[in-house]
Amino acid sequence: MSSLRYAIIGSGGIGGFYGGFLAKSGEQVDFLFHSDYEQVMQHGLQVDSVSGNFHLPKVSAFRNTKDMSPCDVVLVCLKTTNNHLLKTLLPPLLKQDTLVVLIQNGLGLEEDLIKDFPNLNLAGGLGFICSQKSGPGHISHLDYGKLTLAAYNPPAEAIIERVAADMKRAGLEIEIAPDLESARWKKLVWNIPFNGSTVVLNTSTKQLMENPATYQLMYDLMVEVMTGANACGIKYPIEESFIHQMLEMTRHMTPYSPSMKLDYDHHRPMEIEYIYTRPLQKALQAGVDMRKIAMLEKQLLFISTLQV
Amino acid sequence: MSSLRYAIIGSGGIGGFYGGFLAKSGEQVDFLFHSDYEQVMQHGLQVDSVSGNFHLPKVSAFRNTKDMSPCDVVLVCLKTTNNHLLKTLLPPLLKQDTLVVLIQNGLGLEEDLIKDFPNLNLAGGLGFICSQKSGPGHISHLDYGKLTLAAYNPPAEAIIERVAADMKRAGLEIEIAPDLESARWKKLVWNIPFNGSTVVLNTSTKQLMENPATYQLMYDLMVEVMTGANACGIKYPIEESFIHQMLEMTRHMTPYSPSMKLDYDHHRPMEIEYIYTRPLQKALQAGVDMRKIAMLEKQLLFISTLQV
Repeated sequence: MSSLRYAIIGSGGIGGFYGGFLAKSGEQVDFLFHSDYEQVMQHGLQVDSVSGNFHLPKVSAFRNTKDMSPCDVVLVCLKTTNNHLLKTLLPPLLKQDTLVVLIQNGLGLEEDLIKDFPNLNLAGGLGFICSQKSGPGHISHLDYGKLTLAAYNPPAEAIIERVAADMKRAGLEIEIAPDLESARWKKLVWNIPFNGSTVVLNTSTKQLMENPATYQLMYDLMVEVMTGANACGIKYPIEESFIHQMLEMTRHMTPYSPSMKLDYDHHRPMEIEYIYTRPLQKALQAGVDMRKIAMLEKQLLFISTLQV
Repeated sequence: MSSLRYAIIGSGGIGGFYGGFLAKSGEQVDFLFHSDYEQVMQHGLQVDSVSGNFHLPKVSAFRNTKDMSPCDVVLVCLKTTNNHLLKTLLPPLLKQDTLVVLIQNGLGLEEDLIKDFPNLNLAGGLGFICSQKSGPGHISHLDYGKLTLAAYNPPAEAIIERVAADMKRAGLEIEIAPDLESARWKKLVWNIPFNGSTVVLNTSTKQLMENPATYQLMYDLMVEVMTGANACGIKYPIEESFIHQMLEMTRHMTPYSPSMKLDYDHHRPMEIEYIYTRPLQKALQAGVDMRKIAMLEKQLLFISTLQV
């Protein structure tokens, strides 16, 4: 079987990391860069990782997907606030069976994309990773790294196994989840409380964990996510033990700003739609009003208008 | 009937205003001052009011209640965060039938005070007023002014009528409410959403009203207060029309920072206990979990620990 050709859309903290590992491992990886293009063409890509730094002197970098070749696997690592761009970014990369993997947080992403590309082989990915761009062409991977992959539709299932194999060979920790919707909700158990609260209270996960009031609030928000998720009838219901596990994990986490806090601090749009609004809508349709999460969403929407 | 002798405990934006009006009207009013004592002794008290400025050149000012005479009416206009001081501040002022009026926001204030002074004639007061201290011995009254008085126990009823008459004669707008607990909850319909949200989102009532997301949140929070209040079985249940009335009132309000925002901006303790914690406890005992308000309380508790 010939090897897979990859394209990375959004080569920041996530795309630069996973794509960088694949390229280092010898896979053919084309990267779409935006502002970092010149830097990467001249100096390559630097990945500083807790599991070892490396430098890719020659990167197959592009400014525009129109200049890229069709490929077997597209890893979409954009901020979801840019997903409206996929309608024009994706077509040049697609062959008959190209797999698109949305390595993004939130709910409803695949539903939205499939409307524009009804026959797409589609999967989702969830990076349990603390990684950010620390400079042009420079990725800093601070902690964790596991990527959970899950097929959105049956044709994606076979090829996702091959992607997982390539990634494992590249040294990445990969898990294939049996149900994407369950995996997405599960990830939100952490993202919903901490992303929004670090922005609204302008603080860190560490401070939220150490203060008894906000520790309780983080717990309450997690319980709301669990209640909403399970009401939606996800295939693998979330158990309360998972909440304790997430809190315990956060307690031992390297001090780190969640992605939404980084976006806010850098005056970038926040991913409110897919991380808050959609889950709220889905839970409400299932009869659960996640009231504290709704409040957090409103507070974030308020803050986001001040950013403009 | 001889005229009443008044003492004002806490001569800031509220105490300086109501006490100032009474003194201007010719009532005998003793004021307890803290940091402003020297200024007031030398230059008197200046009240700048939307209903006309006035200056009281000679004020009966004191530094300590031990130097004050027993009086007929004590108007307590302290921040509730200082109510623990009442145990030592009040005794020198009390005669057999002295009425103590707590002109303060929140729930549970009288219950707490009566534990220390079981035989006190006690009433509560709610100032619907935008007034603040703008400098030493200088009160700025920006908008509104109505004071609602209500007896906490039967012996307070007769004397409160006389207080209301004195205040009306002084040019103040006074209402006697038939039930203190109902009046206190009613005031919270405004205070709970706006006090906390202006602090957490570091903004103004105007901005909260103009943003569709926070307008909805203010409405939601008001509905929670109403639901909690009515579950507690208050004598005069809050109707939804009152919420619309409060929102309409806020829309036309002079731009103003609620007292909690002013406290926060000036690094003073916030009145979280009586405005949030107690109402939450009372509603919970009545079977209503005011979840958004509980979240606001937690956020405020977090912010308050950062103040230290």
